[in-house]
Amino acid sequence: MNKHPIGIFDSGIGGLTVVKAVRKMLPREDIVYLGDTARLPYGTKSTDAIIQFSIEDTQFLVDRGAKYIVIACYSSASVALDAIRKRFPVPVIGVIRPGVRKALQLTRTGRIGVIGTSLTIYSGAYEKAFKEQDVDSEILGRACPLFVPLVEEGWLDHKVASLVAREYLEPLKQDNVDTLLLGCTHYPLLLGVIREIMGDINYVDASAEVGVELAQSLKDKALENPAGNGTTAIYLTDLSMNFKEIGERFLGEPMKNFSRVSLKRSN
Amino acid sequence: MNKHPIGIFDSGIGGLTVVKAVRKMLPREDIVYLGDTARLPYGTKSTDAIIQFSIEDTQFLVDRGAKYIVIACYSSASVALDAIRKRFPVPVIGVIRPGVRKALQLTRTGRIGVIGTSLTIYSGAYEKAFKEQDVDSEILGRACPLFVPLVEEGWLDHKVASLVAREYLEPLKQDNVDTLLLGCTHYPLLLGVIREIMGDINYVDASAEVGVELAQSLKDKALENPAGNGTTAIYLTDLSMNFKEIGERFLGEPMKNFSRVSLKRSN
Repeated sequence: MNKHPIGIFDSGIGGLTVVKAVRKMLPREDIVYLGDTARLPYGTKSTDAIIQFSIEDTQFLVDRGAKYIVIACYSSASVALDAIRKRFPVPVIGVIRPGVRKALQLTRTGRIGVIGTSLTIYSGAYEKAFKEQDVDSEILGRACPLFVPLVEEGWLDHKVASLVAREYLEPLKQDNVDTLLLGCTHYPLLLGVIREIMGDINYVDASAEVGVELAQSLKDKALENPAGNGTTAIYLTDLSMNFKEIGERFLGEPMKNFSRVSLKRSN
Repeated sequence: MNKHPIGIFDSGIGGLTVVKAVRKMLPREDIVYLGDTARLPYGTKSTDAIIQFSIEDTQFLVDRGAKYIVIACYSSASVALDAIRKRFPVPVIGVIRPGVRKALQLTRTGRIGVIGTSLTIYSGAYEKAFKEQDVDSEILGRACPLFVPLVEEGWLDHKVASLVAREYLEPLKQDNVDTLLLGCTHYPLLLGVIREIMGDINYVDASAEVGVELAQSLKDKALENPAGNGTTAIYLTDLSMNFKEIGERFLGEPMKNFSRVSLKRSN
């Protein structure tokens, strides 16, 4: 089992930031990545649909021998983690809890802001994850549905991005949060305009934290690959016009080994 | 065949504006509407994916006895019309050509602007449709990818909408177009901010034109239903959080008869 790959999935290519973080922490592990680009985004779909899609994504990775599943999509990790754990015998980690742990390490005042898609915020997944770790913090959630389209348009430091960020973040600023959790794969790319509004507080991008937690868990479960080659195979359910350009922005290096796949249906 | 319904599909619920227009022109016809909300939007997917999805959508409507297919999705009408015509024996109309005809009726200077998703604009479908009708007009296309998310956020007359509209439309304004074709189901809802930039020119929303052209074609083909009840059945592949609220904004009346469906795969 040790030589089997780590399976990582996302609704699209934003999850390649998690691939980058895992690759950095675990250079010898093989990684199989699935981006469900034919059905993205997940954040605007129903909970039922996201659970079904996530099961199909996981099945694809399990069929490729994944020894560990990483849910890199925040919307999926918010609503589908329990369903996946129930259905598959392989260990599963989502992007929610590692970010929550890091935020709790960093905060001094206990006032923590969380931003994400409407689905992630309204699912209550973050409140639940914070409650499991700590009862004294005050969690302020804010949905920022225009952030993903802004990143995909490439308007990262455009005046529209500043204005949208001000609109969404002003209430969190007023509430004096000292730590802000970026609860979506795309948001770290907007850190410049987010910082303009929120100033010099703590920012948590869970991608890096997932790498740390996964490395520890592989060790604990004796699942490490001591002699792997560190290959990365990327599968996408659709290859759209500019997926490579956007993908490389997230991955931080050229995308080489990628293929288009169709998923089996779960029902 | 006359008593069979008209089948209309879209990637989501924006196509309900076409339902509204067809209902107005043809009060006795039964309508079956399919919105592929589980995979929306189409405008960011590949041409291959949109053709495959559109064939699956059409199959669903043909299986329900549709005597006529209306493609209410501009991205689909831009790239999948020929594939659908080749595959199905039923007559098919898209949203592209009726809008082009109307724009040509209205223009005085022959300088016509077209706005749509990146896919619609870069597909060249509008240039092709204009060429088929007329050779003397100058067509200026502009992709406006943030308009759909703005409408879905409900920021219809927000200062962000004004700023985004200015960014996208200023080049068309500079080029002195006298007619602007709104090449996406969502764009008519932004007409207020679009008019702020473009001023008192002609605006074409193809939804109404599709109703007119469909009515004429049903008559020509002797496919009219002389004694129908004018029922509307709405099928959606996913029922997301606020689909009813947004759907009723497009339909202009309460959404009653709707169901969730799964589509058969075409490959």
